[in-house]
Formats: sequence, structure tokens, C-alpha cells
Amino acid sequence: MMKTRKQLAAALVVLAMLLPMVIQAEEKADVWLPSLITNSPQEGFELAIKLSRMGVKSTQSSKEVLFRERAKYSQDGEALTHASEVIAVNFQTVAAANDYWK
Amino acid sequence: MMKTRKQLAAALVVLAMLLPMVIQAEEKADVWLPSLITNSPQEGFELAIKLSRMGVKSTQSSKEVLFRERAKYSQDGEALTHASEVIAVNFQTVAAANDYWK
Amino acid sequence: MMKTRKQLAAALVVLAMLLPMVIQAEEKADVWLPSLITNSPQEGFELAIKLSRMGVKSTQSSKEVLFRERAKYSQDGEALTHASEVIAVNFQTVAAANDYWK
Amino acid sequence: MMKTRKQLAAALVVLAMLLPMVIQAEEKADVWLPSLITNSPQEGFELAIKLSRMGVKSTQSSKEVLFRERAKYSQDGEALTHASEVIAVNFQTVAAANDYWK
Amino acid sequence: MMKTRKQLAAALVVLAMLLPMVIQAEEKADVWLPSLITNSPQEGFELAIKLSRMGVKSTQSSKEVLFRERAKYSQDGEALTHASEVIAVNFQTVAAANDYWK
Amino acid sequence: MMKTRKQLAAALVVLAMLLPMVIQAEEKADVWLPSLITNSPQEGFELAIKLSRMGVKSTQSSKEVLFRERAKYSQDGEALTHASEVIAVNFQTVAAANDYWK
Repeated sequence: MMKTRKQLAAALVVLAMLLPMVIQAEEKADVWLPSLITNSPQEGFELAIKLSRMGVKSTQSSKEVLFRERAKYSQDGEALTHASEVIAVNFQTVAAANDYWK
Repeated sequence: MMKTRKQLAAALVVLAMLLPMVIQAEEKADVWLPSLITNSPQEGFELAIKLSRMGVKSTQSSKEVLFRERAKYSQDGEALTHASEVIAVNFQTVAAANDYWK
Repeated sequence: MMKTRKQLAAALVVLAMLLPMVIQAEEKADVWLPSLITNSPQEGFELAIKLSRMGVKSTQSSKEVLFRERAKYSQDGEALTHASEVIAVNFQTVAAANDYWK
Repeated sequence: MMKTRKQLAAALVVLAMLLPMVIQAEEKADVWLPSLITNSPQEGFELAIKLSRMGVKSTQSSKEVLFRERAKYSQDGEALTHASEVIAVNFQTVAAANDYWK
Repeated sequence: MMKTRKQLAAALVVLAMLLPMVIQAEEKADVWLPSLITNSPQEGFELAIKLSRMGVKSTQSSKEVLFRERAKYSQDGEALTHASEVIAVNFQTVAAANDYWK
Repeated sequence: MMKTRKQLAAALVVLAMLLPMVIQAEEKADVWLPSLITNSPQEGFELAIKLSRMGVKSTQSSKEVLFRERAKYSQDGEALTHASEVIAVNFQTVAAANDYWK
């Protein structure tokens, strides 16, 4: 029985050690923007695209509507230019954050 | 009676001490932008969304109209892109205020 | 008569002293933007709203037309987003002027 | 005759002194943007309005067309918001040039 | 045979030396934005055009649709102005990255 | 013959010296943006107009189409405001490059 208690204690220690990792993993699922720093200008541009999409998603979270609308406006030159404009504004922010990868 | 006067004086002192807190509490109800500083880039993005919504609210304060219009333009790709653009401009301000969370 | 002259002189001195204040008061009526510095981010946002409205007013000064148009576009989601965009651009200026209230 | 020569010399000196002013006056007619520095934020805002109008004028120089179009779009809320946006962008430049009148 | 082994060893060394170049060449096909630094303002402007097109491409990757839409909106003054606006925003980023080629 | 060889050598030297100038001259025909530095704010504004037009030209190079579209949108208030907006964005870049001509 002494042994069992020790085993239980050990198991609790392991659990206690694992717990923060479980919590961290759950929190990570919600963290989509941990940093503005990227390894290269190109990765920065990809982050700018992500920011632009998250901006859209903040107003319309339904994936169904987003896919339907994207199918429509991705066929329209003016809408595509507008999408590129939003990315350009976000890329300014990301580039400044990375001191322009100098 | 001497005692009553003292009690009244004491009560007045307490009231006088409480008054600023009451006023502060009422003022706080109106304070929606105490600072541009946030703990992380993601919280900064959420603040940018808030700023964009407060910009809309400054022109149209009726919640009824706001909900009706949001229901409409959240179904339209071009309008969603425009909303994302305003968030991008506000995110530039918040990111600069936080020195890009470097 | 000597006394009257003295009184007149005194009256003139008083008038001369008041004159700058009168002129200043009249000038103040036109001064709507004495400074970009505000006490808080929120006051800065309110100044950004003011700047956006003064920009509109510089093209259309008729209050009648302004109220009529505002009644119209405050009912339209896209126009409200556009108004929020102009405020966002002006808020960038005000925030930079205040060193982001750091 | 000696006197006449002296008078002529004097007249020439006066003319020579006036000449730069005449030239300057003619040049001034074309110089509409000698500096971005203004005495106050409000004068800076007025300069931003001027820059916005000169931008329009660079594409359409006919005063007749400009007045006709202005009469039209100054009646339209969306167009007024757009005009305010251009002023806001130019005001950013003027404000930065003046170090935000700090 | 001793010779053959030596030849094989030599061939392997050459191969090992070439390998990184082959890999690099393959990687380069995907790297379209290695740097924001350019030799001149004009090359910077060309990079801004490239960024604007990559922004469009991120939403619509089909070359067929891109060519069709470009054929349409390149015939429309308003759309051309919009394209120029996106380039202007990206040029701000590239110019800042190059310290304005001072 | 010795002389002829010397003459030929001399001619070749002259040619070699001229060659870079010829190449440079040909290259210059294509160089439309050698620098962002201008002598005055007004020249900077003119450069901003040039940048805006080159942005349009990068999408539509046909002069015929450009003149036709310009004739159309220069008659439309909203399009003129848009053109002024693009100039304003480019003027921000040119003004920053010149440290605001301080």
C-alpha cells in the first residue's frame, strides 16, 4: 500500500506537469497571431494575407457565406484589386514590424 | 447632540471620500478606449476591430439600424473586404503604439 | 474739463485693454483646431471624428444638405464603413501627434 | 545734361531694384506650394484641402467642368465622405511635415 | 579498381557540391520576394507593381480568370485608378525599406 | 602601316570610351524615376502625379485607351476625387523622401 501511495503521488506529479501543456495546447488553438515577426519578406506577405482574411472573418464568421462570397468576388477584377489593397495596407504594418527585413 | 454632530461630520467625511469614486465609476462607463497598449498582437487586432466599430457607431448610434445593416453587408464580399480594410488601417495605429510588440 | 479729459483717457486705456480680448474672442469663433494634442486616446478618437466631419464640411457647408445626406447614408452599411475608414485615417494622425499616449 | 544723366542713372537703379519684385510676382503666380510648413494645425488642414483640390485639378483643369461636378457630388453623402478621405491622407503629410505642431 | 573507386569518390564529391545548387534552384522557383531592397527607385516601383499583382493572385490563382478580368478592367478608367492606388500603397513600403534611396 | 595600326588603336580607345555613354543614353530613355528627391514641395507634388500616372500605365500601356478613359473619367466628380487620392498617397512617399523639404 505504501507503494501504491507512492505510485499515486508520482502519477499526480506527472499529471501536474502535463496539465500546463494541455492548457497551453487549448489556448494555442485560439492564438492565431502570436507575433508580427517573420523570417523573410515573403513570409511577411503571407502574414499580411492572413491578417486581411481575419479582418473579413471578424465581420462574417460563417464559412459557408465566406466561401460563397469568395467564389463570387474572386471572379471580379475590381474586387480582386480591393483585396490586394487590404493586403498592401497590412503588409505595411508587418514590414515595419520587421524593420523591413534589413 | 454633540455626538450626533460628530457623527454627521464623520458621515460627511465618508461621503466626501466616496463621492470621487462614484463619479469615477460613472465616468468609467463612458470610457471605452483607456489605452492603445495591448498584451499581444492578437489583442491589438481585436482593439483595431473595436475602433472600426466605434467609427461606424459615431455616425449611426441606433443599434437597430446597425444590426440590420450588418446583416446585409456581412453577406456581401465587397463590403466584407471594405470592413477588413478599415481594420487594417486601425491595426497600423495600434501596432505602432505597441512598437509592434517587439 | 481737466477731469473729463482724464476720464476719457482712462476710458480709452480700458478700451485699449479690452480690444485685444474682443478681437481674440472673435478669432476664437473660427479656431476649431487649436491643437492635435488630447488628454487621452478616446479624446483623440473624438478629434479624429471632428476632423472627418470638417473634411466633409469643407466641400459642402450647407447644414441643410449635410443633415439630409447624413440621414441617408447613416442608413447604409457601406457608407458607414466608409465613414469609419476616414476616421481611422485621421486617428492615425492624432495618435502619432500624441506619441500614442505612451 | 549732367543732371539728366544722373536722373537716368537713378531711374535705372530704381528700375533694377523693382525688377526682381516684378519677376518674383510673376513667378509667384505659378508657385502654389512654396512650403508644407504652416503656423497652426488648422492652417495645416486648410493646406490639406488645397492639396486635395490641386490633385483633382491635375486631372481636370477646366474650371467649368470642376464647378459642374462639384455642384453634383457635393450633394451626395458618399462623394463627400470620399472628399474628406483625400483631405485626411494629405493632412497626414502636412502634419508630419510640421512635426504635429508640437 | 583502386582507380575506379577514386573516380567514384571524386564523382560523389562533385555531386555533393552540385546538390545544394540544384536544391537552391528548386527553392528559388517558390521564392518570389527574397528582399525589399532594390537598386533604384524605379526598380522599387516595379517591385511595388509585383506586390500588387501577387496580392490579386493570392485571392485568384487561375491565370485564365486573371487574364480575362485584366482584359476587362484595363479598359475602365476607375479600375485603372484603383490599380494605381494599390501600387502607391505598396510603393510606400518599398520606398521606406530602401530609406527612400537617399 | 605602323601608323595605321596606331590610328586604329586610338580609334578603338575612343570608341571604348564612347560606348558606355551610348549605352547609358539608351538606358536613360527607359529611366523615368532616377530619384525621389525634388527641389521643392511643388516639384514633389508633380512627381506624385507622375507616379500615379505610371501606376495606371503599368496596367494599361495603350495610349489610345488611356486617352479615351481619361476623357471619360475626367468628367466625373467621383473619379476625379479618386485620382486625387492616389496622388495624395504618392505625395506621402515623395514628401517623406525629401524630409518634407524642411
